[in-house]
Order: sequence, then structure tokens, then C-alpha cells
Amino acid sequence: MESVRVALAERSYDIVIGESLLSRGSLLAKNMTGDRAVLITNDTVAQWYAQPVQTALETQGIAVDLVVLPDGEAHKTLDTVSGIWDALLQKQYGRDVTLIALGGGVVGDMVGLAAALYQRGVKFIQIPTTLLAQVDSSVGGKTGVNHPLGKNMIGAFYQPQGVIIDTAVLQTLPQREISAGLAEVVKYGLIWDAAFFSELETRLTRVDALEPELVAWMIRRACEIKAEVEEMQAKYGKVPGLAAVLVGARKDSQTYVRMKKKACRRLIERLQLPTRYPCSVTPDKLFAAMRLDKKVLRGQLRFILLKAIGKAVISTQASDEHVLSVLSQFKSEQ
Amino acid sequence: MESVRVALAERSYDIVIGESLLSRGSLLAKNMTGDRAVLITNDTVAQWYAQPVQTALETQGIAVDLVVLPDGEAHKTLDTVSGIWDALLQKQYGRDVTLIALGGGVVGDMVGLAAALYQRGVKFIQIPTTLLAQVDSSVGGKTGVNHPLGKNMIGAFYQPQGVIIDTAVLQTLPQREISAGLAEVVKYGLIWDAAFFSELETRLTRVDALEPELVAWMIRRACEIKAEVEEMQAKYGKVPGLAAVLVGARKDSQTYVRMKKKACRRLIERLQLPTRYPCSVTPDKLFAAMRLDKKVLRGQLRFILLKAIGKAVISTQASDEHVLSVLSQFKSEQ
Repeated sequence: MESVRVALAERSYDIVIGESLLSRGSLLAKNMTGDRAVLITNDTVAQWYAQPVQTALETQGIAVDLVVLPDGEAHKTLDTVSGIWDALLQKQYGRDVTLIALGGGVVGDMVGLAAALYQRGVKFIQIPTTLLAQVDSSVGGKTGVNHPLGKNMIGAFYQPQGVIIDTAVLQTLPQREISAGLAEVVKYGLIWDAAFFSELETRLTRVDALEPELVAWMIRRACEIKAEVEEMQAKYGKVPGLAAVLVGARKDSQTYVRMKKKACRRLIERLQLPTRYPCSVTPDKLFAAMRLDKKVLRGQLRFILLKAIGKAVISTQASDEHVLSVLSQFKSEQ
Repeated sequence: MESVRVALAERSYDIVIGESLLSRGSLLAKNMTGDRAVLITNDTVAQWYAQPVQTALETQGIAVDLVVLPDGEAHKTLDTVSGIWDALLQKQYGRDVTLIALGGGVVGDMVGLAAALYQRGVKFIQIPTTLLAQVDSSVGGKTGVNHPLGKNMIGAFYQPQGVIIDTAVLQTLPQREISAGLAEVVKYGLIWDAAFFSELETRLTRVDALEPELVAWMIRRACEIKAEVEEMQAKYGKVPGLAAVLVGARKDSQTYVRMKKKACRRLIERLQLPTRYPCSVTPDKLFAAMRLDKKVLRGQLRFILLKAIGKAVISTQASDEHVLSVLSQFKSEQ
């Protein structure tokens, strides 16, 4: 079992990482004070993992209710979170209840928000069940829902009591979800830690052979890096996704292509990650979407540019023409 | 102008108290970083005070939009807060916007929640326009909305950038609203500060002659005490309202009545505060409502009992029969 301490004064907590952890009731009980929990998940994850978690809690003498949300980003709304509150109030849960988020980023973000606001704050535990949620949502305390006019527009920063990462759940995860998580992991190497990037190159030889120890190591390092990056994010806003990192790499496109070929591309292609966006999206549409993001500061887009592997800078200096021209190069041709 | 510093490390802020402060644009501007504000109020308060605040902001070069909510506790809902977010997103406000809450506790609680969650937190300024909001909501960072199953069930702790208390607004406040504020002020003396209570007895000779200097002093002291009481509340939960304080004063009803007569009652009657609840409410109903409050811990009601003026203790030791019998004594006879 690996673990990462996220140090935030009185809000510090531990992330534990290992195989088959979700059925270890003692790990869950350690992060609770009361003896009543509400397990919240979605209808896809529930089929696989609701029962083992429930049983694990009950063996610790913890009474547990189950709330099952509809699966999918479309349901990441204030209405869905309101449904959680209705369920909690109907059963008259007080401030001593602990909410347990079992699922991917969507479930985690909504349960975190529900916990942050229920009676002005109750405890919650994260059990992220996608690789992306394990490396991205375990650190940072971001909770929230979408609004018809923008993603994650309504939310709060709220820390969990603990995060339990069970690497065995990745066995039931579709390949595209594994890819999304790996892309995030590669991004951490690119923008922050050249040694980690090069270790990934050495160790991640086959994406379909993610054996437990390797995955646990990778998740632990990613969480550690995320904790460091958070400090930067607190100052400058969220680091954009992998596509934007690649897009902005260098103004001089010769140098850019060289760097991409030599380092990034090798690993990315080996991991079978997408390097182009679908031809149904035009560069104009992509650019318009970037402008709507809440990272836009006073009308100016901010980019994370790579000076080298592991060295990123934040810049607002890219012209619209240049961004559009780089975006065009990443459009898929079919 | 009086002022109180609320010391909360990097979330510290100032409460300023004085006559005609809401038209002082520089006080508002001091609490902002950007140059865009959204003034949020209700339709009653808007008629009196929206224009002066708007003008004050504009003279400081601050662009200001106005959002007017329907007046009343019935509208203290997540739907109303959602309406604020819709307005902010439709006008594409970013994280640099400052929300200004102009109104009583209901407006303050909702705008605070809207600010806490909009893009995971934007700045907000409180301009409380009722005496109760001035003494009760200026300290503590409580924001929230009601749920059909309970008051203030959904909310967050979120601190304002500053609080501006204009004592002149009390001139347009209905007498019952003045009474609600005075009851809160008297409560602070009773539970926390005997010297303040006795000063109130000396200085508050006529409730209809609340002259500006006296009011400013009273509000400042109340805010200072609230800041101290907050520490206690952080440990034990919210101090209940005045009625509960009186109800719980002593088990020995002889002693209780004596104390009430000698000290509490004199001031309370002079201030024309209600000492009985309406006969339409039965003790049973009142007791049931108390049981639904979120201060109830594991099914046990907690009472603030007075050992003496200025000395309160928290107790869960009152039997249901005793509480009901004391409640019966406070029922109005007409």
C-alpha cells in the first residue's frame, strides 16, 4: 500500500493507494467520526462496487444508506446535488453523517459539493474509480457542478477526510477512460517533473499491461506532483489540459516539432493516446470554447508553455492567429 | 465612524459603522480589486437604497449591474440563488467580479452563498440594512438557503471582504425589525458580557430615540461580542435565540422568575420586546420545531442556560417535561 499525505494544516488528509482497498472497512472507518454513512455512486459503478463497500462499512458497525445517481456528465447539475440533499434531509441526517463518493470525477465533484453545503459542511470520503479521478481529483479539493452556460461554474473548494484509491477497479474501466488518466499522468511529467516523465518512458512499456505495483507507483507520484502543482494553481489558476500544453509548446514550430518528436510523441504514441482532435471540430470552435473557460482573465487566454520537458511557464503572449494556426495542425484528417 | 476588525488570518476583514456610509464609494472601492460589481438587493430595499449605492460605485469608476430579488424569507431558496448565477453567467462575469449584498439577513445569506460558489468563490461585500443583520450577520461568515425540510440546511461558511453598516438606514426600518435586532443585542449581554448588559440598561432609555452615536456604539460592541462568541460557536454550535435563553434560565423556577424580574425583564420591557409567543403556537408545536433544528446533536437538544447575567453554559440536561412546562409559561394568554 502506497500513501500520500496532503498537508493543509487542520484540513490535511491521506491518500492511500493499493489493490482491493475498497473492501477494507477499517480504512473507511478511520476517516469517520460518527457511525452513519451515506454511500453515493452512479448506476454504472453501483453494479460493480456498491455492495462490497456497503458490506465493508457494515462489518465496522457503520449504518449505511445508498444513493444512486444517474451516470454521465449530463447529470452533473445542481438538480442532481439537490436530490442528494433531499435524501439526506428525508432521513434526518445531522452534521455527524459522512458522505462517501464512489465513482469517477462527476460523482466525486457532486458529492464533494453536497458535503460542503449540507448543514454548512459534513465529512466526506473519496473512493475514485477512474484513473483520471484517481490522479486528478484526489488533490485540490475542487467540487462543483456544470451550468448550462459553462462547465464547473458553480462549486467550492472542500477537502475530503481521506481518499481511498483501489487499483483493482481499473480492471473494469473502459480503455478510453484509462487513456484519459494516462494523458493526465503524462501531463504532470511534461509540465513539472522531467525525472517522472523519463521514468514513465522506461516503465510504461505496454498500456494494456498496467500491473498493480506499477499503477500504484504512478498514481502516488501523480498525486504528489498534483499537490505541488496545486500551489502554483492557487496563484495562477488551473493548468489546462494536455492538448493545450502541446499546442502552446513553442512559437517556433520547427523547434516545437523537434521536441514533440523526440520526447513527448514517443511516449504518447506508445500509450496510444490521441494526438489529434476529431475533424468534426473546427479550430474556430475549439478556440471559441477556450475563450469561454473560466481561466480567461479579463478577456485574455492564459497558456502553459513548455520550455523543456518538466519546465512550464504561463503566458498570455500568444496571438489569436498563432493559436489558430497551431490548433489547425492538430486537427484529424479523417 | 466606528470599526471592528474581524481577525481570521488571510480572511480578516473590517466592519465599519456610521451614518450615511452606503453612499461613500471609497469605502466600497477599498474592498474590491476589480472594477466590476454586481449589486444584489430585494425589491423593498431597492426602492430606498439601490440608487445611492450604484451612484457611489460609479463615481469610483466601478461598472455596476443591479440584480433585484423578491423580498421575503419564502424566497430564500436555491432557486433564487440560481437566478443570481444565471444573471452573472449571462453577462459573462469572471472571477474578478465583486458581489455586493444590500439588504437584511435573507439577502446577505443568499448573496454570500452565491459568491462562495460562483466559479468556486468571488469577493463579496455586505451592506446589512436591518439592525438584526447588522449585529448578527456581520460576523460568522454564515451563508445559506432554506430547504422545504428545514431552515438554512444548505449553506457554507464564507467571509466577506468587508461589511459596511449605515446606521441611517434604520430610520426606514419597521419597529418590529428594530425589536428583532434589539433582542439579539440584549442576548449578547445576557450570555456573554454583564458590563455590556448593564451599559445597555443605562444608555438605552427609550427605544424610539435610537440616536446615531448610541446605535453605532451598540452595534460595534455587539459585533465585537459576536466575534468572541463565534469561537464558542465553532466548538458547540449556534447559540439559540433569545426565547430559548430565557426558557432555559434556571430549572428552579422561583430563582428563574426572580432573576428575570430583577434584571432581564426590566430592560426587555423597556425596549418593548415581546416576552410571550402568540397563543396560536402551542408548546408542543414549539418543542417539535426545536427538535428539527440542526443544533440537535444525536437526537439531544442543547440549551444555553444562564448562570448569571453574562454567564451562559451549554446543557443537554433538561427533561422534555421540564422544557414543555417552561414553554407553557411563556405562551401569550390572548
